[in-house]
Amino acid sequence: MRASRFFISTLKEAPSDAEIVSHKLMMRAGMIKRLGSGIYTYMPVGLRVIRKVEAIVREEMNRAGAIELLMPLVQPAELWQETGRWDKMGDELMRVKDRHGRDFAIQPTSEEVVTDVVRSEIKSYRQLPVNFYHIQTKFRDERRPRFGLMRGREFTMKDAYSFDRDLEGMQKSYQTMFDAYTRIFNRFGLKFRAVAADNGAIGGTGSHEFHVIASTGEDALVYCPDSDYAANMEAAEAVASGARGAATQALTKTSTPGKTKCESVAELLNLPLAQTVKTIALTVESEEGKKSFWVLLLRGDHELNEIKVSKVAGLKDFRFSTEAEILEVFGTVPGYLGPINTKLPVNVVADRTVANMADFVCGANEADFHYTGANWGRDVPEPLVADLRNVVEGDASPDGKGVLAIERGIEVGHVFQLGTAYSEAMGATFLDEGGRPAPLQMGCYGIGVTRILGAAIEQNFDDKGIVWPDTIAPFELVLCPMGLDRSEMVKEATEQLYAELQAAGIDVIVDDRGLRPGAMFADWELIGVPHRVVIGERGLKEGNLEYQGRRDEAASAVAVADMVAFIKGKLGK
Amino acid sequence: MRASRFFISTLKEAPSDAEIVSHKLMMRAGMIKRLGSGIYTYMPVGLRVIRKVEAIVREEMNRAGAIELLMPLVQPAELWQETGRWDKMGDELMRVKDRHGRDFAIQPTSEEVVTDVVRSEIKSYRQLPVNFYHIQTKFRDERRPRFGLMRGREFTMKDAYSFDRDLEGMQKSYQTMFDAYTRIFNRFGLKFRAVAADNGAIGGTGSHEFHVIASTGEDALVYCPDSDYAANMEAAEAVASGARGAATQALTKTSTPGKTKCESVAELLNLPLAQTVKTIALTVESEEGKKSFWVLLLRGDHELNEIKVSKVAGLKDFRFSTEAEILEVFGTVPGYLGPINTKLPVNVVADRTVANMADFVCGANEADFHYTGANWGRDVPEPLVADLRNVVEGDASPDGKGVLAIERGIEVGHVFQLGTAYSEAMGATFLDEGGRPAPLQMGCYGIGVTRILGAAIEQNFDDKGIVWPDTIAPFELVLCPMGLDRSEMVKEATEQLYAELQAAGIDVIVDDRGLRPGAMFADWELIGVPHRVVIGERGLKEGNLEYQGRRDEAASAVAVADMVAFIKGKLGK
Repeated sequence: MRASRFFISTLKEAPSDAEIVSHKLMMRAGMIKRLGSGIYTYMPVGLRVIRKVEAIVREEMNRAGAIELLMPLVQPAELWQETGRWDKMGDELMRVKDRHGRDFAIQPTSEEVVTDVVRSEIKSYRQLPVNFYHIQTKFRDERRPRFGLMRGREFTMKDAYSFDRDLEGMQKSYQTMFDAYTRIFNRFGLKFRAVAADNGAIGGTGSHEFHVIASTGEDALVYCPDSDYAANMEAAEAVASGARGAATQALTKTSTPGKTKCESVAELLNLPLAQTVKTIALTVESEEGKKSFWVLLLRGDHELNEIKVSKVAGLKDFRFSTEAEILEVFGTVPGYLGPINTKLPVNVVADRTVANMADFVCGANEADFHYTGANWGRDVPEPLVADLRNVVEGDASPDGKGVLAIERGIEVGHVFQLGTAYSEAMGATFLDEGGRPAPLQMGCYGIGVTRILGAAIEQNFDDKGIVWPDTIAPFELVLCPMGLDRSEMVKEATEQLYAELQAAGIDVIVDDRGLRPGAMFADWELIGVPHRVVIGERGLKEGNLEYQGRRDEAASAVAVADMVAFIKGKLGK
Repeated sequence: MRASRFFISTLKEAPSDAEIVSHKLMMRAGMIKRLGSGIYTYMPVGLRVIRKVEAIVREEMNRAGAIELLMPLVQPAELWQETGRWDKMGDELMRVKDRHGRDFAIQPTSEEVVTDVVRSEIKSYRQLPVNFYHIQTKFRDERRPRFGLMRGREFTMKDAYSFDRDLEGMQKSYQTMFDAYTRIFNRFGLKFRAVAADNGAIGGTGSHEFHVIASTGEDALVYCPDSDYAANMEAAEAVASGARGAATQALTKTSTPGKTKCESVAELLNLPLAQTVKTIALTVESEEGKKSFWVLLLRGDHELNEIKVSKVAGLKDFRFSTEAEILEVFGTVPGYLGPINTKLPVNVVADRTVANMADFVCGANEADFHYTGANWGRDVPEPLVADLRNVVEGDASPDGKGVLAIERGIEVGHVFQLGTAYSEAMGATFLDEGGRPAPLQMGCYGIGVTRILGAAIEQNFDDKGIVWPDTIAPFELVLCPMGLDRSEMVKEATEQLYAELQAAGIDVIVDDRGLRPGAMFADWELIGVPHRVVIGERGLKEGNLEYQGRRDEAASAVAVADMVAFIKGKLGK
């Protein structure tokens, strides 16, 4: 590619609505252009990266035996009604009526359509397993689009759907996709981590997220440096620390005026925060409108994990109690709640760690008073015990092999064992070996193609701009000739090297725009091309060119004759 | 590719709603699957053809200096309102509201968005010319979707947009695209014709359509076998035949009871149809509601061309007169109208051919009567003369180099000189060499990617199925091993040949599904793979394989050792 025939449009400053690094740099590098809220034109530089990401995804999906097709963007509402998602998805699902008033969805994913394809195409176990995928534009009408491609409304996603005859087959297909994803993210040249995830509302039996590691990531990833354990914060299991000690103190009502937070109570009483217990009041209403009341007990320095709460038997549809309910149940105001002497009976659920505490501090159900020296069995009946909290750094790993660490990540892929949820809703069955109809076991597997761009940049940038990994860079190499218009020697050397590099299969752009060196270098550093060769008369007279890697501190001289081999070496080609 | 890892699903019968050959064959070959009216899933076989078409289009667009980007599918209404197309496009434009009630269009083309990109990116003549294109999903809410991919609602289109500083530059960009299109359709291996087209409502200064020739095509293409002249029926110029003869007959009112058609009048009077003139009454209403009345005169055997009529000065907004108007203006009923003795004054426009006629027959403005022997100047004042009719086979070519022929075609590409219509509406200007702002000169260039599939099949099929040209076939070659599961010799020969063909860069599929030969051959003939090699034990023992081209009557033996070179020769590789 010659820069004069390409379109490069860089900016000194990012627009003010760009909040995060990747969004700013993509705008400044001319990769994307905003058309509307969460809707971007992919400009030529940006599209090249997208195409490289897509090509790697496609190769590895094909290698893993998945078969590419292309499902429509505009999908009849009837299919979405079959699975109930037409109602469940709410405003995120973009809906449209055609000229005859018929309802359609602009697809955010394609579970319904692929299941519709499969229920008419797959008749027998002999046709299984099968895995269909497509790489396609998606639309989700996000409430608050932001962060450029990171949380856009229109985006590109690779979504794959496997169909198997039984659970075992589905798990095998799932593992095949897990392995393909691992290869894909390795080929991107990104630091990433696969973590166990919660199955969420969609149901099913297993799920992993693939995260690009970045300190700016929205998600907390929990992992054990000494083992394979890794999960996202929603799913990471918090184990109790230590065993319960013996009671050594008497239960004592203590005045704590105005101290409604564990932190301030601990400070007032000069006790460690880890000695305090916070009490969270929940209400569950039955379908008939009957209420039951619950308290959750959490150590003062721990955070509630609502996903875990919703998995406690009886708490699937919990909500936090209102102030009126709290007054009715506990006889006091929030800040002084506790499990002892509630006005109305409550179900007590203690986090695993709290269940192991002795001589703890909790609210006395009386304004301005807490208890100290509270103990299980003696002052409070033994509680229900459950994992209710987010893990913290230093927690024991659930596999017993060390302690947990936490890092930040950006979710870019998700693999999911769906089971028969969709196939049963839509009547997608096959005839098994005995000739009996059975529902298809389904898995689904997504990669956020355009999101990869943002995540890769969040992980790879410096004060000059983007630093692309070789495999997904818009160009692998830029040639910067000095004084192309006035030096015949530079011109000839540039043309020859350019031809040789192209012949060697290197994705090279030559900057023939006639810019001054400073402006030229700044553009390519901002755009993030990982390798640069400067062609100048002085060097040429000594038989040299100047090479600099995007992360290198300084340039180094390389003999003209060696340059192609040198670059091939750098690119591992 | 191995067929066992691919998805092949052929049908004996096409569904009953498939009306035309290409739709039937695409359904039977498992290329597409209907999701809704005019909305199809591209199944794996179909997607492979689409990808090959896209790759050729992309290569030639890049070669021609066009730059790929990707514009959004969901586009804010505001841009469409700037050009007025939000109102003009009517129901064909699919409209959608987001969660905040804001209006968007699902793009049918991207003139507005690309002009918006350019008005902010292009500041100076130094950045010109530039040509941006994308290959993308489009949606047009057709009133009556049909014919499979030929007239679908969701489809894939390549649309390119050039921007130049002046008319001359635009015409050069236009010619560059014209040449690129010529290369593209040649590479598709399709018989095609570029024809001059009418500019239509969009305005601008020049336009050509690219048609795939097919007897089933919707459009009539006019061309001169002895010259380069070619135009579509709307735009083809009809020249007068011969010069006007002298009047030899007296004007005579003749009884023609019940004869309201030229054909029946000619039969009754025993005159050639070419001696008769039909009279068409038009009304034009001014904005103030004032009506003017017109008659158009056409030779009895000719057809009216409404596009041409609308170009006659004063007739831009013509409509056909109502029966009441006809009675008021002519004093009689349709079937007996003529230019002589109308009740109210009318503007008479004669087609060029009619203007050259003498002694002609026309209605007498009295029921059951026609005039014979009518002559210009003597019986009727000399008329306005215009080209009003469709050309017919045998008409003189407008370039004077022979006579015209007509064939049928399917429009698959369109190049268009838009001029400044969009750039002026949207304020897309650049600074010229004198530092003055000037509107960008624009061209637009479309190729219906998915429509190519239908058109290619309409041109290339037989009673067994599709016959793909090599370059856009889903696979170039299929290997059909006989008895793969029971002959080690066949298995080994197949694997070796498969590996060698792949290494030679041939897009080959090996049918390892274990079907009987008849079923296997029928599938590949239906799908239309252009080359087939059968690997059987009997042939192998003599060192031979059996090759058959999709259009060949019979197979021929080719030595095993020669096969790769033989196939490369067939494919011109």
